[in-house]
Amino acid sequence: MSEVADATGFAELWSSLEGIGRDGRRGGYQRFAWTSADLACRDWFTSQAADRGLTVETDRNGNQWAWWLPRGGDRSGALAVGSHLDSVPCGGAYDGPLGVISALAAVDLLRARGLRPSRPVAIANFADEEGARFGIACTGSRLMTGQLGAAAARELRDGDGVRLADAMEAAGQDPESLGPDDERLSGIAQFVELHIEQGRWLVDHDAPVGVASSIWPHGRWRFDFTGEANHAGTTALNDRRDPMLTYAHTVLSARKKARLGGALATFGRIRVEPNGTNAIPSRVQAWLDGRAPDEATLSAVVGQIIAAADERGERDGTRVEVVNESRTAIVEFDDGLRDRISETLAGTFGRVPQLPTGAGHDAGILAARVPAAMLFVRNPSGLSHAPAEHADTADCLAGVAALAEVMADLAGAGPEGTGG
Amino acid sequence: MSEVADATGFAELWSSLEGIGRDGRRGGYQRFAWTSADLACRDWFTSQAADRGLTVETDRNGNQWAWWLPRGGDRSGALAVGSHLDSVPCGGAYDGPLGVISALAAVDLLRARGLRPSRPVAIANFADEEGARFGIACTGSRLMTGQLGAAAARELRDGDGVRLADAMEAAGQDPESLGPDDERLSGIAQFVELHIEQGRWLVDHDAPVGVASSIWPHGRWRFDFTGEANHAGTTALNDRRDPMLTYAHTVLSARKKARLGGALATFGRIRVEPNGTNAIPSRVQAWLDGRAPDEATLSAVVGQIIAAADERGERDGTRVEVVNESRTAIVEFDDGLRDRISETLAGTFGRVPQLPTGAGHDAGILAARVPAAMLFVRNPSGLSHAPAEHADTADCLAGVAALAEVMADLAGAGPEGTGG
Repeated sequence: MSEVADATGFAELWSSLEGIGRDGRRGGYQRFAWTSADLACRDWFTSQAADRGLTVETDRNGNQWAWWLPRGGDRSGALAVGSHLDSVPCGGAYDGPLGVISALAAVDLLRARGLRPSRPVAIANFADEEGARFGIACTGSRLMTGQLGAAAARELRDGDGVRLADAMEAAGQDPESLGPDDERLSGIAQFVELHIEQGRWLVDHDAPVGVASSIWPHGRWRFDFTGEANHAGTTALNDRRDPMLTYAHTVLSARKKARLGGALATFGRIRVEPNGTNAIPSRVQAWLDGRAPDEATLSAVVGQIIAAADERGERDGTRVEVVNESRTAIVEFDDGLRDRISETLAGTFGRVPQLPTGAGHDAGILAARVPAAMLFVRNPSGLSHAPAEHADTADCLAGVAALAEVMADLAGAGPEGTGG
Repeated sequence: MSEVADATGFAELWSSLEGIGRDGRRGGYQRFAWTSADLACRDWFTSQAADRGLTVETDRNGNQWAWWLPRGGDRSGALAVGSHLDSVPCGGAYDGPLGVISALAAVDLLRARGLRPSRPVAIANFADEEGARFGIACTGSRLMTGQLGAAAARELRDGDGVRLADAMEAAGQDPESLGPDDERLSGIAQFVELHIEQGRWLVDHDAPVGVASSIWPHGRWRFDFTGEANHAGTTALNDRRDPMLTYAHTVLSARKKARLGGALATFGRIRVEPNGTNAIPSRVQAWLDGRAPDEATLSAVVGQIIAAADERGERDGTRVEVVNESRTAIVEFDDGLRDRISETLAGTFGRVPQLPTGAGHDAGILAARVPAAMLFVRNPSGLSHAPAEHADTADCLAGVAALAEVMADLAGAGPEGTGG
């Protein structure tokens, strides 16, 4: 089990995907759910699976599954691996695709060793993990597990007012089929998602690969700051009700409250009306991304930010309304699965660090229903959700090797002639 | 000269324009230069002039002129009146159109009295006063007076990357003809622009109509705050270079420095990249609108705001670059013309208040070349550049009557049989 993954095969897989949805001007990726770029990624997945003789299914929620079956073709008690292919705006190449590519490369690696699983392996490409278009992250896995209702999902709208249902339908996916998929979940014994790390924990711990311990609770809150549109050149300062002031104060308060509370708080998205140079805005909408090590801290910090906004709004004569658009509870990954993975990898990698993460993942959603785990691959800069997101090829290959070992262990891979 | 303007005629003029470019959802107007809504406004102007037997010309810079000529048809030494028909995003109905409609209504009023001018009167509709689309205010009058170069103007681009030259050409206006128009300017003896007041000075002075004393110096500065895109859920606060923080601090500093300096400073327009909920922005672009009673104060306050941004940028690890996109010097309106107008109006209106304004106007641009003046009509809320911008009809009719008196005086209107 100590052979390295095939560098040439990995590079070929990588280059076959990297042209899709690339933003030629800014260098990152624009692969939003159910857009042409996303559909091209999905076609790529189907084609790569077909090249390997894997059967691809699309489930009722638009998630794709490529099956590597044991002799006899049994599909029950499967080991699922994989990740997603969609991106945030100007996203990097690794967040999502590394997990899918590594799963395909791990199949290649195990086959090159003459192995075949005794239990079925399914490689997943989850639909709309980033939520960049319709605002809800992990839409495909949330629908599958019933954490997002089908009716609510169908009515989600993108920035142009297009309904999710209509976007899916235009892509040939029946939106009426959306909903919990207990049958599929009951056939999955474990899920293991490999992902690029989105911080520098593994750099600090000098390790190419790590195992996730937990996912911080996190959520999104929309702040609507409403004032009064007026002429910037003629309205006395005291006559203004300028929501940009309330917003600016809230941004700085969020940073301060997060720092004091040991949490993360970010305002990275804003919409201003009318957004004219010489116009005091009538409204500023802004989204708070909040994360913390535990539920109580998250609630406390967000509450403090809202209180700071309210207080400033009173001074500015503006109205502040806050809607919690989503909230995801803390995920403690399955102890048994995590320890088994750590033991499996100890032979090749020595002691594998366990690390928490502030980012949501499909593995975190599925963890509510099946034992789930995550492998992280070192990210030298810690940059993520940005065009410069990067992992060194040697670390990517280590990730493939680690995933292959985990697959071999969990799916009971044995010599081609003896499996299943 | 004490008759009131024709309320029915004014209402008809008003209603014939109010449907054009209206934003059905938000209630204001979207009449940006050379868009279909603007072209419809220009057709409306031509049609209204034709209904009155006035000859319409479009000058080399896209400004429209409707001529009311004395007997003999002489066009030299003209009195020009009028304003503009374009709007800011979600603009009100009065800013611009009130001046054009009042000029047409004043012609009707003088004719109803059997009067005809002994000097030519030209009603102007200036092109692209607001600069809402291409970023430069008073484009038509600036080009005419040489304050904006033709080559630079042609290369201006709107938010979709469309060049001004291409937008004009698509609208049937030759962009190659842009440039200084000394011949036309030399034919104008005075320019008087009527406009809704954009503050509450006339409310405080209990007067329906006022005369402008000066226009504050003002300008636009683009601030580029550059940081590093990263994942909002995984990047430690200390590892961030978040330009939104620098922006927020600058917004609050601008307000404080303006208050202390007796100036106006507004951030009402922003562009964020990538503008995703879970993404620390790579860049925030924001535009500062600055105004002050005198040049030195304006320079000092803007300098203080830039210094505050720089200082905060050092703390945030972000880069701050500032470009002065435009700056307009203080305009002191012609003393002689202003006093003559005040005397003319004293009979009907008593003492007419003189007031400064923070807003730029075509009259301020033309003032560099010809004696110019402005009449303001009371604005009960002071709201402007907003859908709720409003003037009471009685005050609008007072404005028409005042403009008619000024036109009769300056253009030497006499009985129809004796003019010219």
